[in-house]
Amino acid sequence: MHTVMTSRTHSDGRITLAHGGGGELMGHLIQEHILSALGNPALDVLTDGAVLRSGTSRIVLTTDSFVVQPLEFPGGDIGRLAVCGTVNDLAVMGGRPLALSLGLIIEEGLEIDRLDRMLRSIAGAASEAGVAVVTGDTKVIERSTGGGLMLNTAGVAALDDGVHLGFDRVRAGDVVLINGPIGDHGMAVMSVRHGLEFETEIVSDAAPLNGLIQSVLLAGIDVHFMRDATRGGLAGVLADVSERTGMSMEVHESRIPFRRATRAAAEMLGFDLLSVANEGKVVLVVGADDAGRCLSVLRQHALGRQAAAIGTLAAGTVPMVELVTTTGGRRVVQRPYGEELPRIC
Amino acid sequence: MHTVMTSRTHSDGRITLAHGGGGELMGHLIQEHILSALGNPALDVLTDGAVLRSGTSRIVLTTDSFVVQPLEFPGGDIGRLAVCGTVNDLAVMGGRPLALSLGLIIEEGLEIDRLDRMLRSIAGAASEAGVAVVTGDTKVIERSTGGGLMLNTAGVAALDDGVHLGFDRVRAGDVVLINGPIGDHGMAVMSVRHGLEFETEIVSDAAPLNGLIQSVLLAGIDVHFMRDATRGGLAGVLADVSERTGMSMEVHESRIPFRRATRAAAEMLGFDLLSVANEGKVVLVVGADDAGRCLSVLRQHALGRQAAAIGTLAAGTVPMVELVTTTGGRRVVQRPYGEELPRIC
Repeated sequence: MHTVMTSRTHSDGRITLAHGGGGELMGHLIQEHILSALGNPALDVLTDGAVLRSGTSRIVLTTDSFVVQPLEFPGGDIGRLAVCGTVNDLAVMGGRPLALSLGLIIEEGLEIDRLDRMLRSIAGAASEAGVAVVTGDTKVIERSTGGGLMLNTAGVAALDDGVHLGFDRVRAGDVVLINGPIGDHGMAVMSVRHGLEFETEIVSDAAPLNGLIQSVLLAGIDVHFMRDATRGGLAGVLADVSERTGMSMEVHESRIPFRRATRAAAEMLGFDLLSVANEGKVVLVVGADDAGRCLSVLRQHALGRQAAAIGTLAAGTVPMVELVTTTGGRRVVQRPYGEELPRIC
Repeated sequence: MHTVMTSRTHSDGRITLAHGGGGELMGHLIQEHILSALGNPALDVLTDGAVLRSGTSRIVLTTDSFVVQPLEFPGGDIGRLAVCGTVNDLAVMGGRPLALSLGLIIEEGLEIDRLDRMLRSIAGAASEAGVAVVTGDTKVIERSTGGGLMLNTAGVAALDDGVHLGFDRVRAGDVVLINGPIGDHGMAVMSVRHGLEFETEIVSDAAPLNGLIQSVLLAGIDVHFMRDATRGGLAGVLADVSERTGMSMEVHESRIPFRRATRAAAEMLGFDLLSVANEGKVVLVVGADDAGRCLSVLRQHALGRQAAAIGTLAAGTVPMVELVTTTGGRRVVQRPYGEELPRIC
């Protein structure tokens, strides 16, 4: 039994940082421990939120905790991240966010001025998203790591009647789109952590995507599936789509938008940009006949100016994601493993 | 300005543990910092949850974080606490819980067996309450205090058309009821923390109250206001009702149910039982004509066997809570101040 335990957990029966990295080890923790205890049809689908019925209407519920260090970074802070993360989880389910809850876990010793700054940032991001924080909870914990502040946001959204999204709606021939350059959030945080400075500052992309996504849905585009590419980056989402649909995917590296400074930082620190986190990027899967129009609707929005169609799905024998590189080579895109993923949210 | 800052924060501009104690200092933090940044009509009412409209139906959203030490104690653990706390916040708003979200913040080094135990406890409490965990999030943080596990639960509930609860519905002459003995949760946790053993073990009262509360509502009793007496204890809720309604309240000590062992522990450790936390106790305010029937409905439920009517409201000139002691004296019940309240959830 002991060897089985060890191979199952990679950690002699204890949680390691890699269990939270958003990679394979985390998938294992969720499947074998969390779902095996709490599993039910709503939770088992492991989408960004759960769809519930309340009377005649459908609502979406989602939650996220934020434990990022540093609390502030170029382009945002933990407060902006918390609001955007939860709004985006609701939005990619097709929901119109109705309200957020906010749980503050404050470490003893946090400067009240700093807390005020984070609270104003929360208010600002919520206002951008057009949603209010309607209920909350505050806890203060003993001084420990000096982290200072952890946040949890949960959100509810209304799901309109016409909206039906899911892995089961993805078809061979569908096109994969993304709304802009990848990796900015993760590299903004990592650059601060490593004390790096670049000529062009790398700025987190943290932004509420509900407006952008509603513009696509209101244009009548039949989106089959959406997910925001956060922990695990673009690679994580693409691997999920392929694995859960059983289809193969061909992605063209030359079509994936990125900023030069961000890629330089990733290369310097040894990260694959495909696996680096974003907080304002959504991957959309639409039918081939909708792809052109979807792209043009995305590009009309401030958060979609550099949107691109980056790949297509095919009914392959093996569900895998193949990247056609800029040099014409091919490589398989793997789901990132937890240990290579720094915690950036 | 410096002296003003100091008197405002009691802490030279930094958060202290007392800011999280559920007492006056916490009230100040919430009013002057959180509400001043995030304030909106839903949040400003500071009830246990917020009421939202979704189409034609009303839903309630609430959230709570849990950072208790130790993780396990007689009668429960942090998992049971998280489910009961959120279910109870929904229930005292008059809601029928539809679903919960679960945010796990795990400290590196937590034994996976222990995590499994907590997850099973979450599943068990959710099943008692008849509600499922439908969505979640997992983060792993660096080893620090060795606390091991923090939880956040948010919940949504359906609010039926006939239900209208609020401070504004409380009238002079209304009767204040409670469903059973006070202080068991707080003293169970504190006894473990102080290494105390008593002849009769003190067991947390953590329990989901939605079944009990629905039995009252379904019996057609017009409840004016309800709140679960958690942090700040019974005293905190009574002080709130008096302050927010502008009415005075007379409470009879002899009618307040308690267990002998729990009171002994409170006396030994220097706590006022009125201020000690509960996790399965609800304070109900009903009209005088409904009080007798409400009491008998409560007593028919397993979680209300020792229910009691403990006081009445009057249109006083000064909003305050007066306790008529068992010796016939009178004393004013104060809202507990943060520093005297250990964190027990």
